[in-house]
Formats: sequence, C-alpha cells, structure tokens
Amino acid sequence: MNVAAKVLTQDELKAMAADKAIEYVESGMVLGLGTGSTAAFVVAKLGELMKSGKLKNIVGVPTSKRTAEQAASLGIPLSVLDDHPKIDLAIDGADEVDPDLNLVKGRGGALLREKMVEAASSKFVVVVDETKLVDGLGGSGLAMPVEVVQFCWKYNAERLKTLPEVAGCEAKLRLDGDKPYVTDNSNYIVDLYFKTPIKDARAAAKAISSLEGVVDHGLFLDMATAVIIAGTSGVSVKTK
Amino acid sequence: MNVAAKVLTQDELKAMAADKAIEYVESGMVLGLGTGSTAAFVVAKLGELMKSGKLKNIVGVPTSKRTAEQAASLGIPLSVLDDHPKIDLAIDGADEVDPDLNLVKGRGGALLREKMVEAASSKFVVVVDETKLVDGLGGSGLAMPVEVVQFCWKYNAERLKTLPEVAGCEAKLRLDGDKPYVTDNSNYIVDLYFKTPIKDARAAAKAISSLEGVVDHGLFLDMATAVIIAGTSGVSVKTK
Repeated sequence: MNVAAKVLTQDELKAMAADKAIEYVESGMVLGLGTGSTAAFVVAKLGELMKSGKLKNIVGVPTSKRTAEQAASLGIPLSVLDDHPKIDLAIDGADEVDPDLNLVKGRGGALLREKMVEAASSKFVVVVDETKLVDGLGGSGLAMPVEVVQFCWKYNAERLKTLPEVAGCEAKLRLDGDKPYVTDNSNYIVDLYFKTPIKDARAAAKAISSLEGVVDHGLFLDMATAVIIAGTSGVSVKTK
Repeated sequence: MNVAAKVLTQDELKAMAADKAIEYVESGMVLGLGTGSTAAFVVAKLGELMKSGKLKNIVGVPTSKRTAEQAASLGIPLSVLDDHPKIDLAIDGADEVDPDLNLVKGRGGALLREKMVEAASSKFVVVVDETKLVDGLGGSGLAMPVEVVQFCWKYNAERLKTLPEVAGCEAKLRLDGDKPYVTDNSNYIVDLYFKTPIKDARAAAKAISSLEGVVDHGLFLDMATAVIIAGTSGVSVKTK
C-alpha cells in the first residue's frame, strides 16, 4: 500500500491505522477498547462494522469513562473486567513505541485502566502514526505519566525526580486548567519529562513502582503483540 | 518490671507499651504518628508531655485523618511529608509481628499513609500487646489488607486469591455497614485471610504489588527498628 501521492494529515494516518487494526477483530470477541484520539477511530470503525452486521456478538471492555460513552453511543455492548476477566484482544494507541515494542502510554490520563485491561488481553494491538516511534522510551521529550495518590503528591514528585533510574528528569503535576488533573480513580498524575531516553526502562519501571503512593506508571513493557504504524509511505505492522 | 500480680486489660497493656515508646521521643523531633487504638495511647501521652513542657518543639506527621484530629485536639503541631520529607521517628501499632520484626498492619484502614510515613522515618518503633506476636505473618487468621482502586475490585480480589504466593487465602471486600469501606485515598480494601502463615512474605508482597490496581498492602517488611511488647509479665523491647 502506497499513499504517498498526497500529504496525509495526522488524523488521516490515525484512521488508516485504525482500519488496519480492525482486521484483527472477529465476531464473538471480548475486546479491550483503548482511550485517546487514535483509539477513538478504532471504536468508531467498530461501531460502523457492527451496525452493518459485518461484526457480531462483540463485547467491549472500555479503558475510560470517555471511551465507554463513545462506545455506548454507537450501540457497542459493554462489560467490565469483573464480569469478563479474560479479553481476547485489546486495541489502543500509544504515546511512544520503541524498537522492542515497549510503550509509553497514558498521556490521555487513563493509564491504569488501560494497563489493567491490556494486561488481561491475550493479544494487544497498538495503533500509532509514525510520529510516535522513538529510539528509546522517554525520547520524545513529552510526558511519561505516573499516577499517584493525592496525599503528599509533592513528596512523591520529589522522590520520583531523584530516583537514580530516571536521573535528570523533570517532574510536574498535571493540571486541568488551574487545578490538578484528577484521574478516573481520584488520583493525581505526575508527568516525567526526559532530556534523553531512559537508559533501562525495566529498572525505571521497578523503581517507580516501588515508591509508596505510586499507583501505576505509563511504561508498558513486554505487553504489545503487534504495532500498526501509519506513515506517509503507508501502513506497516511490526510484531515481536 | 513485673506487673503480673494483677490481670491487666488489653487497654492497660497498650498504655504501658505507649509509655515505653514515648521514651524514644526527644524534644525537637519530627514524629510520625500512627493510627489505631495503641497509637492513640501514644498520641495522648505525647500531648500530656508537651502540655507539661517535658517535650518541646515536636512536629507530628499524622498517618490518617483520625490521628490528625486527635493530635490537633491535644495541641500537637502538625505537618505533612510534603513539608517534612524526613522523619526522625515514627511510632505506631501493628496487627501482627513476626520473630524477624516484620509486620502486618492496616486493619485500621490507614496502611498506605502509614507505610509512606514510616518508610520516610529514620527509626520506626512499633508498639503492641503480646497478643499480636505470631510465628509467621498471616498466622493470626485475621485480615491482611490490600488497598485497591475501586475500578474492577472484584477482578483484583479474584486475582489476589489465585496468586500462588498466597495460595489458599480468602479475599473479602472490607465493608462499612452494608457499603464498601473507603480509605482516605478513595480506594477499597480487600482483606486476605490465611489458614496458615504466609510461607514467603517477601515473595507474597512482590506478587501482590505487581497486580495493576493494587495501591499497597499491609505487609511491612524490614521496616521496624524496635518492637515494644506489653504482656502480663511486663514490657519488653525487641530490636533487630
């Protein structure tokens, strides 16, 4: 597939990737539904195919209140991990993808629910446009989110910043206007910003998780089974 | 000290242990203030000694809203980890103490804040009556709490119950009347009940922490520097 003849917008690239991802879906599946602008294209496409009858008996497990609302508005039957603890396939976007298919996720704020649902999935297909590819996680210079309890978040932001495993990063409370951004789980997010990619993402993940009051973080390691990448030269699929 | 001449109530034992613990406090200290019935004796005693002028310039860092209220009512100046990230000494009760001074804590529901404060303390003195001593953690048969996000708590209760590291335990949502008990951090508590002591508490702690949606748990390993034990034959102190 080569569509380089015209310059595509980022939204067109996301839609192309979403179309490819939908090919992994089969009737009867329990599907993890991601959160964010790319995942929204996937959910929209799923709604279309179910309406036309091309896909049947799908149950969606949404990773955020936003996604649940979008899916419900399209008539997609929804469930939760409590009732469907095993998911056939999850499809979601990502903020960064490294050469080993490790991810940074959660800039949309839904990292914990995304991680719970995607860790429960037999297959996890990631959908991105090519701007999300990095040589090493943290390398985009954009936020790597850490979800923390509200209690003494400053203390935890200080501790995060000074962990040797993420040396040199900045730590900033995520805001929603002039108030702290609050996650679906009533927690805050401390965003870490890196000047250079994280040297050892596994060590960083372990150190971050070990801090009391950290609920989860945006490093999704060894979780993706395939990454669909939409670029100006077409759509490609990387698997492990 | 031998006070075996009369049978002491559990409250009298707790008060004796609290009196001993207060001996560790010096004027000028930043003090972590625990939560629960034994810790309340410590806070009460601290208030007395500050009122009489025997202790001065103490700043207390409370581990729960309840303890903050009690301390404030006694005129003890309070702070938080955000402003006092280094604590000289924390004093708190425990639900179980094993021969290596590892603990189960959090039956009072304040486990996360207790762990944050006590992990930030140079010294952590635990105050118990002798009924809290166990051969192995979980051995009392009473609750070992796990704080989980509200989202899909049933899914996490099922996952907790089936972890090989805690094989055979029961997992029950903690209730407050007929509604779920909600922690100071807006989370739920799943209490684990063991028929036999946990074989490898370190492995259990690691496995429990690794589940997405688990915020913290009541295993406090390698944290206590001294345990003060009040029993019918007097007060004894165990250190590592």
